[in-house]
Amino acid sequence: MIEYYLSWGIQAEKAFRYVYSTNIPKIDITEISNIVFIGMGGSGIVGDLAASLAYNRLGVPVFSIKDYRLPMWVNKNTLVISISYSGNTRETVLATYEALKRGSHVITVSSGGILRRLSEKYNLPHISIEGGLVPRAALPAMLYTVLALLERMGFTIVSKDEINRSIENLKLWCNSREVDSEAKDLATFLKESIPVVVSCSKFSPLAYRLKNEFNENSKIPVKVEIVPEWGHNDIVGWEKPPATSNMKCLIVNCNEDKCKHLLNFVKEAISRVNIKCYTLNLKGDSDLNKLMYGCLVGGLASVYLARFRGVNPIETTSISMYKNIIVKLIKINIV
Amino acid sequence: MIEYYLSWGIQAEKAFRYVYSTNIPKIDITEISNIVFIGMGGSGIVGDLAASLAYNRLGVPVFSIKDYRLPMWVNKNTLVISISYSGNTRETVLATYEALKRGSHVITVSSGGILRRLSEKYNLPHISIEGGLVPRAALPAMLYTVLALLERMGFTIVSKDEINRSIENLKLWCNSREVDSEAKDLATFLKESIPVVVSCSKFSPLAYRLKNEFNENSKIPVKVEIVPEWGHNDIVGWEKPPATSNMKCLIVNCNEDKCKHLLNFVKEAISRVNIKCYTLNLKGDSDLNKLMYGCLVGGLASVYLARFRGVNPIETTSISMYKNIIVKLIKINIV
Repeated sequence: MIEYYLSWGIQAEKAFRYVYSTNIPKIDITEISNIVFIGMGGSGIVGDLAASLAYNRLGVPVFSIKDYRLPMWVNKNTLVISISYSGNTRETVLATYEALKRGSHVITVSSGGILRRLSEKYNLPHISIEGGLVPRAALPAMLYTVLALLERMGFTIVSKDEINRSIENLKLWCNSREVDSEAKDLATFLKESIPVVVSCSKFSPLAYRLKNEFNENSKIPVKVEIVPEWGHNDIVGWEKPPATSNMKCLIVNCNEDKCKHLLNFVKEAISRVNIKCYTLNLKGDSDLNKLMYGCLVGGLASVYLARFRGVNPIETTSISMYKNIIVKLIKINIV
Repeated sequence: MIEYYLSWGIQAEKAFRYVYSTNIPKIDITEISNIVFIGMGGSGIVGDLAASLAYNRLGVPVFSIKDYRLPMWVNKNTLVISISYSGNTRETVLATYEALKRGSHVITVSSGGILRRLSEKYNLPHISIEGGLVPRAALPAMLYTVLALLERMGFTIVSKDEINRSIENLKLWCNSREVDSEAKDLATFLKESIPVVVSCSKFSPLAYRLKNEFNENSKIPVKVEIVPEWGHNDIVGWEKPPATSNMKCLIVNCNEDKCKHLLNFVKEAISRVNIKCYTLNLKGDSDLNKLMYGCLVGGLASVYLARFRGVNPIETTSISMYKNIIVKLIKINIV
């Protein structure tokens, strides 16, 4: 599994180059009043990351939807980007089909599956991503596809130059002893614990990404908290937590402005009840760099933790069981 | 504290009647391309609940923002509803002031404080809510104010008739032995545990509301999970959780369509590792009714659990400490 993560620099570059070499849909962007990402799990997080990157940069609202239900306001002025690594995620396919019926501008991103066939049948723009990877380890393939696509369409949330620089950084980090060592330290810290991952709102998709990695690779439950909201309710839960609690706290620190003070306060408050804290300081000079640094360290750490626990990081038996249920609940007779 | 919850029917009715007796802002609703709620904690959850109720009913996107940062796309075509029970929540005031500078249509809702003074100074529509309550127990005062306000403005997410019926239901539930008994059962079940609250996406604001109630009233940490996303990552965390885990699962069941099957599957998967599950079946014939039923039972249960644990449900010392930090980080020199 480690080798998938260590190829992230190359994976990102391939995806980026592919988008710049292929035809992309011509859409009059003045017609678009909002952008909706549809996706679940390791594909859904791409929408969260894009929405967070767009927050301070795009004049159009970006929503990330992790559901088979589509909100009523999705219409012909909505740009819908549907992402499913396999292309077979039932929730995503159903919501995408609904968007299609409403006349939205739909673009699909997958390595194949129903989503690709749906696109062929209804003549929707489809962007292929590299196949044969473990979906959650295909994050750069999906994310850089989307960032490059949006940049080419005129919805620039990360400039071409910034994307390029982040790919160079990723390549360096994939070969960096410090990154590997940080991942091992983090995995060692989290042994035998239920992690509580805390970040600021801008980096909340990273906190959720780390949760998902520890869920899937390390097979442990994880709790996520986001500041400033944390200071209005969850904080009180640490005044007198139940005695048998085996939680440990992972603080994701962007080191920006107010965030570092707030996150330092989180550390103090949680340490007071003898819960140990580990601070992951995000490296990089842009939001994208910081997000990818955190994703890489977290991904590697979750695999190391799986090794410590004697579990197979790749196998996710229970997700297969879930999929058996969802295919019965969501019948796809479209393609 | 219990008595605050038991007055919810009357509290909701007062708020509802007040909005129908007062002047409300005249806004050309065709000018509005999106609606943004700003609020934190017990006030912020109102935006989550409204956004969820609007999901299938409103042709305009509704966002709930729990941050001092405002997304770039908030502009003169945005209707901003800022809610702070005290009116002094720094994050909310700062984001509201930013919306004001961008020329958004801003309406403020508070029992007083800076938000009211800001509204007076800049001639913003302000809706007063009943003062002297514990903020989190003032949920109906805030929620029914907002629902009635939106209905009167022409953004009907819940009809006047539906609001009225839910108030009648709330009154009945406040005097119902079954509701009280369900709350006590739930509190007893959750003794000495860290709850994991699971719901479907439509009822996710209720799951977060329950978390916040157990945080603030019972002083315990809580984890929240939402289906269908849960089946794509968190599920794996229950394959082999750390041995010392003292979690218990609270399933919030709307009993709708696909949800009940998915939530039943959650129960099976989590029970397999000997984690006990309690199913809270939401009563009522509308989404609003179901949400309020869950909020009431959860609120009462969190107070009973506080009693079992020997903690004071009203006092939230650590939130006061947080507020000392945030007032230093966010200086308000506006009013």
